[in-house]
Amino acid sequence: MLGKYLDIVREKTPLVHNITNYVTVNDVANVILACGGSPIMSDEPEDVEDITSICGGLNINIGTLNQSSIRGMHLAGKKAQELHHAILLDPVGAGASRLRTGTAADLLGKIHFTVIRGNISEIKALGIGTGTTKGVDADAADAVTEENLDSMICFVKGYAASTGSVIAVTGAIDLVADSERCFVIRNGKPQMGKITGTGCQLSGMMTAFITANPDNVLEAAAAAVCAMGLAGEIGYSHLAEYEGNSTYRNRIIDAISLMTGEQLDKGAKYEIR
Amino acid sequence: MLGKYLDIVREKTPLVHNITNYVTVNDVANVILACGGSPIMSDEPEDVEDITSICGGLNINIGTLNQSSIRGMHLAGKKAQELHHAILLDPVGAGASRLRTGTAADLLGKIHFTVIRGNISEIKALGIGTGTTKGVDADAADAVTEENLDSMICFVKGYAASTGSVIAVTGAIDLVADSERCFVIRNGKPQMGKITGTGCQLSGMMTAFITANPDNVLEAAAAAVCAMGLAGEIGYSHLAEYEGNSTYRNRIIDAISLMTGEQLDKGAKYEIR
Amino acid sequence: MLGKYLDIVREKTPLVHNITNYVTVNDVANVILACGGSPIMSDEPEDVEDITSICGGLNINIGTLNQSSIRGMHLAGKKAQELHHAILLDPVGAGASRLRTGTAADLLGKIHFTVIRGNISEIKALGIGTGTTKGVDADAADAVTEENLDSMICFVKGYAASTGSVIAVTGAIDLVADSERCFVIRNGKPQMGKITGTGCQLSGMMTAFITANPDNVLEAAAAAVCAMGLAGEIGYSHLAEYEGNSTYRNRIIDAISLMTGEQLDKGAKYEIR
Repeated sequence: MLGKYLDIVREKTPLVHNITNYVTVNDVANVILACGGSPIMSDEPEDVEDITSICGGLNINIGTLNQSSIRGMHLAGKKAQELHHAILLDPVGAGASRLRTGTAADLLGKIHFTVIRGNISEIKALGIGTGTTKGVDADAADAVTEENLDSMICFVKGYAASTGSVIAVTGAIDLVADSERCFVIRNGKPQMGKITGTGCQLSGMMTAFITANPDNVLEAAAAAVCAMGLAGEIGYSHLAEYEGNSTYRNRIIDAISLMTGEQLDKGAKYEIR
Repeated sequence: MLGKYLDIVREKTPLVHNITNYVTVNDVANVILACGGSPIMSDEPEDVEDITSICGGLNINIGTLNQSSIRGMHLAGKKAQELHHAILLDPVGAGASRLRTGTAADLLGKIHFTVIRGNISEIKALGIGTGTTKGVDADAADAVTEENLDSMICFVKGYAASTGSVIAVTGAIDLVADSERCFVIRNGKPQMGKITGTGCQLSGMMTAFITANPDNVLEAAAAAVCAMGLAGEIGYSHLAEYEGNSTYRNRIIDAISLMTGEQLDKGAKYEIR
Repeated sequence: MLGKYLDIVREKTPLVHNITNYVTVNDVANVILACGGSPIMSDEPEDVEDITSICGGLNINIGTLNQSSIRGMHLAGKKAQELHHAILLDPVGAGASRLRTGTAADLLGKIHFTVIRGNISEIKALGIGTGTTKGVDADAADAVTEENLDSMICFVKGYAASTGSVIAVTGAIDLVADSERCFVIRNGKPQMGKITGTGCQLSGMMTAFITANPDNVLEAAAAAVCAMGLAGEIGYSHLAEYEGNSTYRNRIIDAISLMTGEQLDKGAKYEIR
């Protein structure tokens, strides 16, 4: 059922404007191309409104924010909202510094995001003011587990209700929810945590998915999460014994570029709660 | 005949100063090393004049321009011109935003570029004020085809005559021209379009080629285009069925690093018109 | 003997704050993850003090410095020093421009660095005001060789004594010294010089090593150098005949991610002088 959302990305080739960090930006561009979208990067305040206007979606990632790019995020977000574009927020490191938490909160106050995607610590930092973000990784104490699953689903649906956004929390178990339905996704491999930027890549790809599927944002966001996790499984299966995290990074993007909707349908592991 | 220009890059190890975007900068550095050059990146206005002074060539790419790097481009370009260095402009996204089109035009007004390299939409945006740049990719409507080849060659030679620069337009068919001669190049694979930054990489490598071959700029620029396309063909031939666009990116740079002048002579597919 | 310092990185998962260049930053993040650390990147002055406070170590690399990141380096360095964190300086391009040489000197005047790691030209530029830095690579005239080894060891120990820092000079022969002892290391492959950022990667990894091993900084820094060189040997041994510098880059990080302390003990090639 989710595979068709990938097929539609490939048919529509959505143009995605990214204001993202310089750490993982190349991988974000390559994964957007791999899934069938077309990426553009621009963070200069004087440039972002024109660039976002020719795109269909906007991906805002605060991973290496600075004073200039923060202005760019606000200008691009405002313009994209006027144009009814899909807009995604990846609040990298929210909870880890006042500037990051504050910037994410400011953006959330002024722009309506179609999707907010982060790890559980980042989402808790924004949703309930706690969450002990360990740098850019979630704290183990916050993790979504089989034991706390019911209450975490409840939290995520509640945050979706209060923001009016689809909320995507990724980790060992991924949750993608609006106020009423939550996709609980169990694709992926723990080794993906040893690669920098799988979260950033997912945010870029998810923006392509929700841009191409504006009437099915929840399903499209869930499809992107399943695709990333499935690519992690496929990429891992092809590693030689001497290949480690850097080759794995490439093989995940490779698997996205070769994935069909049918393959995604067969490999997606989720339930709806 | 073109292979010797690669051999000369390897002999001279030209130092290339790059003011380039943060999306593809790592690949640009690796491809310059791969072809035999030595890359330095610096965009801070207070730093660029010293850095460009110790180099032999300057590669200006406006892919993620900002107010500070634009100042850096002008200062470095002015200094490089005083020192008679090879200077290349890659007007990424010209036609897609006023800032990009305006910045490229300003630079062209103040600095004489040895080579201008872009996709056809970017070059049309600069050369005749049209060109419907689709983000950072050329619009299909602008493409150089067998059908419009004569008129495109005429356009490119005319733009070369009016700027005094060698013009390199890359796409399915590549054109590299001065006012009198045009290399029409048919190397490459369509799959290269699914990798971010092959154009940026080519600009970096081309700057190394024209820096090492100052008396044969047209031939050196054409050699760089053939080398990139041939590397795309070689890299593609070694992909396993589970390897996609991210591994392909690496294999193209690999093929450059292993390419000999003799191999380039045999693999280059071009005619001179 | 040195392998245990790698094991300890894996046990402690040190959080490393990096203010580093945008050219090689993705590889720096991946290599820190590969060795067992956890990387965070932040250079915005308003953000760096909070970020460095939640980390255990700070890696300052001036590769693509700008006015804003220079302020960030000073603020982060001051805060990290107050918190007794491990702090490393990688003075990329010191000697190549006044801004780089001056920034490195300013930082050295105000912050006590646990380790200073660079190529020989950079270290000479800082230590004795000479050194003919060839861009971001060492000049061949400065190289550490078997012939000048005694005098180079003497210079490096002297510079360690005058700064109170461990000095790591990397090249064909690597030297890692405090005022009394010098590790002379002969791991690595000359082909590593054709990959951008092996030095930056080493600085990131070394910061993880010295953060996790605060009571054995000299040994931990030497262990990081041996690990990088050994990874270069292992990665090279797995290259197919059609794989070149870009795949090699990935395989080196792969080898780090798979390296055990025992493997490092067996493969490390060094003497103490």
